[in-house]
Amino acid sequence: MNAFELHNPTKLVFGAGKVSQLGGLVKPYGKRILLVYGGGSIKSSGLYDDVLEQLSKIGATVHELSGIEPNPRLSTVNKGIEICRKEKVEFVLAVGGGSVLDAAKAIAAGALYDGDMWDFTVHKAIIQEALPIGTVLTLAATGSEMNGNAVISNWETKQKRGLGSKLIYPQFSILDPKLTYTVPVNQTINGIVDIMSHVFEQYFSLTTDIPLQERFAESILLTVIENGEKAIADGSDYDARANLLLAGTYALNGTLPNGVTTDWATHGIEHEVSAIYDIAHGAGLSIIFPNWMKFVYKERVSKFVQYAVRVWNVDPAGKSDDEIALAGIEATRAYFTRIGSPATLGELGINDEQLDRMAEEATQFGPIGTFKQLNKDDVLSILTASL
Amino acid sequence: MNAFELHNPTKLVFGAGKVSQLGGLVKPYGKRILLVYGGGSIKSSGLYDDVLEQLSKIGATVHELSGIEPNPRLSTVNKGIEICRKEKVEFVLAVGGGSVLDAAKAIAAGALYDGDMWDFTVHKAIIQEALPIGTVLTLAATGSEMNGNAVISNWETKQKRGLGSKLIYPQFSILDPKLTYTVPVNQTINGIVDIMSHVFEQYFSLTTDIPLQERFAESILLTVIENGEKAIADGSDYDARANLLLAGTYALNGTLPNGVTTDWATHGIEHEVSAIYDIAHGAGLSIIFPNWMKFVYKERVSKFVQYAVRVWNVDPAGKSDDEIALAGIEATRAYFTRIGSPATLGELGINDEQLDRMAEEATQFGPIGTFKQLNKDDVLSILTASL
Repeated sequence: MNAFELHNPTKLVFGAGKVSQLGGLVKPYGKRILLVYGGGSIKSSGLYDDVLEQLSKIGATVHELSGIEPNPRLSTVNKGIEICRKEKVEFVLAVGGGSVLDAAKAIAAGALYDGDMWDFTVHKAIIQEALPIGTVLTLAATGSEMNGNAVISNWETKQKRGLGSKLIYPQFSILDPKLTYTVPVNQTINGIVDIMSHVFEQYFSLTTDIPLQERFAESILLTVIENGEKAIADGSDYDARANLLLAGTYALNGTLPNGVTTDWATHGIEHEVSAIYDIAHGAGLSIIFPNWMKFVYKERVSKFVQYAVRVWNVDPAGKSDDEIALAGIEATRAYFTRIGSPATLGELGINDEQLDRMAEEATQFGPIGTFKQLNKDDVLSILTASL
Repeated sequence: MNAFELHNPTKLVFGAGKVSQLGGLVKPYGKRILLVYGGGSIKSSGLYDDVLEQLSKIGATVHELSGIEPNPRLSTVNKGIEICRKEKVEFVLAVGGGSVLDAAKAIAAGALYDGDMWDFTVHKAIIQEALPIGTVLTLAATGSEMNGNAVISNWETKQKRGLGSKLIYPQFSILDPKLTYTVPVNQTINGIVDIMSHVFEQYFSLTTDIPLQERFAESILLTVIENGEKAIADGSDYDARANLLLAGTYALNGTLPNGVTTDWATHGIEHEVSAIYDIAHGAGLSIIFPNWMKFVYKERVSKFVQYAVRVWNVDPAGKSDDEIALAGIEATRAYFTRIGSPATLGELGINDEQLDRMAEEATQFGPIGTFKQLNKDDVLSILTASL
């Protein structure tokens, strides 16, 4: 086990109807609020009205930034930053899924930075201060509700980059499983793949003697596999939605990487695909991850054997380690297919034209990943296998 | 799953040699420090010198309270409170095991309370403010390093009671597995039982549809079972000590009770035993828990079947549910015995003289527990079975 530091100050408020606590949660931070959300779904569901009612109760002045994209764009973030500066916003409230939360984080950091927010993503600047943030989550997926990370797309340069800081952890996040009842099936599916992928990035590690972290990761995977199918079958299954929500949060709230060297190469590769083609992150991960697994598993077959046996219940009897490992990878692919997630870039209309550029961009700062370090040719191989 | 709130602001700094960060961690809180510790073990190990060196580097004035008992006593806590008031202490630093940490928490709360600190334990007062606390942990056991709870014994009245508040979470806790190398075998054993018991109290629940919380609990148990034996066999096994430390923290840092109705009856019963006989908490739990299990398992046999199969690998083939459940309970007892933990009160020289008083005290505010509500007669039955 490696040395590590764990500090997660976000307060999670979890349960049906918990939006009723929103006013009280926002109150300590001020009255000038920027409300950030996506499309019209929070209006049709009634959540928008509930949020405004809560903010009105505390006498807040609410400015709005709507229309956050599924891959939130720098141009939209900049609009939010402008509002914050002009209106002296004191608190940024994100109501929506991971993209809305990520946009809010970038706005909160950018509002107090005397420069271009994009600087944070290209290591030209470090976040020194940020407006406080709160969130009302409507989708189990990114884990953004309880961490200090955000991913933003620069549509002009076709780049998708992350920023991170202790200062952009939400002060609180309200998680009401019922708010996820109306999530469309395709977004539920993408969320499931996203959560599982977050676990994969931290589970497939060369770090040894981390039995607790491994079992925690397997716990999340088993929970998502089982409850994901239930939530797809019945979007209003409270427990399935609740279990997915909680699993999504724990997949990326700092529980799994304690003392573990994590990988994150597949996310890097997928970001290049969705930066150019604007596909859903979950769909891209569904295509790429099994191909990454096949490309790297021989680096430590035993880890993939453990994965196959513990997560997919692969019977090891009479099989070689390679066969067990590959059966686990095939089970992953089969599950993604069973829940209706894509297996090839071709299904999304993506051909080989831009693969070289993606591989180039993904490795522009050097090899990526730690389970197996991937250079440009490796990434190209994985992308080609994903066609 | 029930509604819940999760908020754990403690910063964990984990790894070999991390005491080197102590000065920087304390610095923001002030220079007048109360250093709380137990016996001489931190002096013989050199930790005491390392701590003082760190505090000297930041120019701190250090007051000391040593001699914290294994079941920390109100009279000792009151001495610490007196020092804090007289010396205008700004920060309480606990260096030791769970008892030292608990004493520091009680001191931190009592120092800013205009009355008897014992009031907090008997619900006569609520903690409204507390001095900030930091800890350097030397023993994997109580989880006190990352929660807002403490247990204090009133030796005059033979009472052992808890206090809890958001305000007494440590600001930081340094966990260096190497600091636990010198823990005597009997304390290592007690710590193992203590950690497993914390999990039991939250795992054996009537709440349904909590697959993630259950698997997290099983993850901790499996980790402790395996690494506990390793740490006993070789006290300087870094990974075994590290895994025990991390498991102990996660057993009681708010991960397991999310959305779960927890039990805690067995802790209540054990507190009455150790309040009168001053036995080690872990030893008491080792004796009582398997008897509690046998007394309550029929309330939901399926939970004990799951426990037996997943944690103890009991083969369910050809067995009734009752037989599987009882095999799991027997495996628990067998493990405690295998690591050298007691099975009967008699082994500790305790006879039936005070059982009635203990049962009376344990249920003085009404029935205890939730898996099965226990009245005085029930508690007496469990204690009698434990003789």
